[in-house]
Amino acid sequence: MIVPEQNLRLLAGDLLAHHGVPPEAAALQASVLVEAELRGLPSHGLQRLPRLLARLGTGLAHPAAMGRQEWRRPGLLTVDGERGLGPVVMMAALDALLARVAETGIAMAAIRNANHIGMLAYYAEQAVDRGLAGIVMCTSEALVHPFGGTRAMLGTNPIAIGIPTGTDPFVLDLATSQVSMGRIHSHALLGEPLEDGWAVAADGHPTTDAEAAKSGALAPFGGAKGYGLGLAVELLVALLAGSDLAPEVRGTLDDTHVANKGDILLLIDPRGGAADRCGLSEYLHALRTSRPADPERPVAIPGDGMRARRAAALRDGVDVPDALMDQLNRVRAVVA
Amino acid sequence: MIVPEQNLRLLAGDLLAHHGVPPEAAALQASVLVEAELRGLPSHGLQRLPRLLARLGTGLAHPAAMGRQEWRRPGLLTVDGERGLGPVVMMAALDALLARVAETGIAMAAIRNANHIGMLAYYAEQAVDRGLAGIVMCTSEALVHPFGGTRAMLGTNPIAIGIPTGTDPFVLDLATSQVSMGRIHSHALLGEPLEDGWAVAADGHPTTDAEAAKSGALAPFGGAKGYGLGLAVELLVALLAGSDLAPEVRGTLDDTHVANKGDILLLIDPRGGAADRCGLSEYLHALRTSRPADPERPVAIPGDGMRARRAAALRDGVDVPDALMDQLNRVRAVVA
Repeated sequence: MIVPEQNLRLLAGDLLAHHGVPPEAAALQASVLVEAELRGLPSHGLQRLPRLLARLGTGLAHPAAMGRQEWRRPGLLTVDGERGLGPVVMMAALDALLARVAETGIAMAAIRNANHIGMLAYYAEQAVDRGLAGIVMCTSEALVHPFGGTRAMLGTNPIAIGIPTGTDPFVLDLATSQVSMGRIHSHALLGEPLEDGWAVAADGHPTTDAEAAKSGALAPFGGAKGYGLGLAVELLVALLAGSDLAPEVRGTLDDTHVANKGDILLLIDPRGGAADRCGLSEYLHALRTSRPADPERPVAIPGDGMRARRAAALRDGVDVPDALMDQLNRVRAVVA
Repeated sequence: MIVPEQNLRLLAGDLLAHHGVPPEAAALQASVLVEAELRGLPSHGLQRLPRLLARLGTGLAHPAAMGRQEWRRPGLLTVDGERGLGPVVMMAALDALLARVAETGIAMAAIRNANHIGMLAYYAEQAVDRGLAGIVMCTSEALVHPFGGTRAMLGTNPIAIGIPTGTDPFVLDLATSQVSMGRIHSHALLGEPLEDGWAVAADGHPTTDAEAAKSGALAPFGGAKGYGLGLAVELLVALLAGSDLAPEVRGTLDDTHVANKGDILLLIDPRGGAADRCGLSEYLHALRTSRPADPERPVAIPGDGMRARRAAALRDGVDVPDALMDQLNRVRAVVA
């Protein structure tokens, strides 16, 4: 059903508040989920809310923790998330970094023991809104096989990069898997075949059967290169955050384990340099208007699609599956 | 012909010295070229030396410049390379960063106006040798078309990431193009067809004709995601280094223009945290011994192939094309 964005924020915030989350934190967590819906990324949207509420109920998520921050070095912040909500711990780290980056020009936070932070683009955009470049990475449960391998040994290990320009910012947000496990599940639900090269079955053979792929592994994107990048994220996050490696990671897809993946946030202040942001905007314009492969589909810049979908959803409302809305409304009826 | 590595170093160092390069700088520039040969990366090896010598002759490369360094902010070093040799300017920046990163835990250099820095893995390895994580990026002439586009509008924009572990380091070094332009030229020389998806011709249509691709554009690796990463490198380097954007970049493939691309070096000190390097090594071992897709080809870790090729070439010598050795020996005969 089509639901106005504001109603979704109120509903999510209300449910979180009824599970003990303070108002400001509830609004932030609700915002991160709803912003994913607005951008057409339901896998990082409200479908994650029931699991999060269950985790709050069992203590796997702490409703008010903002993370214990320690400046290990003047430019490196280490955070024990204390089981806090991912967006709450991330935004507290961002605030701490902002004060430091104004001074040093560059600063990084490495976070362990926080719950799922949601869509990475959210934090890259927060950086860009403050005139900074932002790079965000995180790890996840083992879902991706190595290039030339067949076992799920790496997380989907997404990377987001936000860069301010003279006009619309550049906002890239990609998983280092070819597709998300959410997409495999959605194909399985619809009984649709997968495309070649998306996944292998549990026996290690390539498959286009979505059901078989659910117990198999996702391919890395871009062959050996994408595998290399995903593995770099895996190692860098674990090294700096002290979080666990994919085969041991739990807690972002279940309501029975502590979340032991890691997150990294890097901020860089481009001010005071030779930076020519208008030059960046002119270049992006030249890219958008360069000769496309398909005359009907102009060249796009990362962030364009998200912005367009968000604007449409703000205007027209968000299409949320009936079953999910029913589930959320039932929970509200119980707790209210 | 097969040439011992030491002979190549001496020959390259000798030629550079005869073009006015001080001994230490000549040895460094020679080392970066020969290390690429040892790793089986001839596109970044000695074939670049004649052009470099020509650039030294015309003043497009300055034989002794180490770059004018300015700490724009305590963690951000800006370098005007003053037309210096790429490796010389990069290593001077690395030295400056090392002193700072020991204090702050993180520091970045953004460099413009230096000549070609060669294989990025070289600098990532320098970081790892000092117990640091190192990330290197640079831009280049426009050779790559945007995803969904047909014009060469982006550089090949490589990324290297070095991460220390308890055993062999992780060293990733990849261009964000599907293949290098060097590979297209080598296929053209041999009259071999390209694989589907590598390149488009000047008219914008996909081609497997290597000659046609030479005047066309390379595909980004990994579709929209690889394009997004290449574009992120393009924008981030230009923003921080104040270097030019791909359509305006010249000077790494010619001997007529100043090199106006940019380079970035980021160092992070993982010491003093919860880092478990032995855990990383155990994980990499588990990856290497995980079930491969092809029983004959075990899963590899970025850096493995380079190390194996280097060890073999140190033992057996380097296979350098006769024509290139003849060319270099002729130059030496003239200058000696």
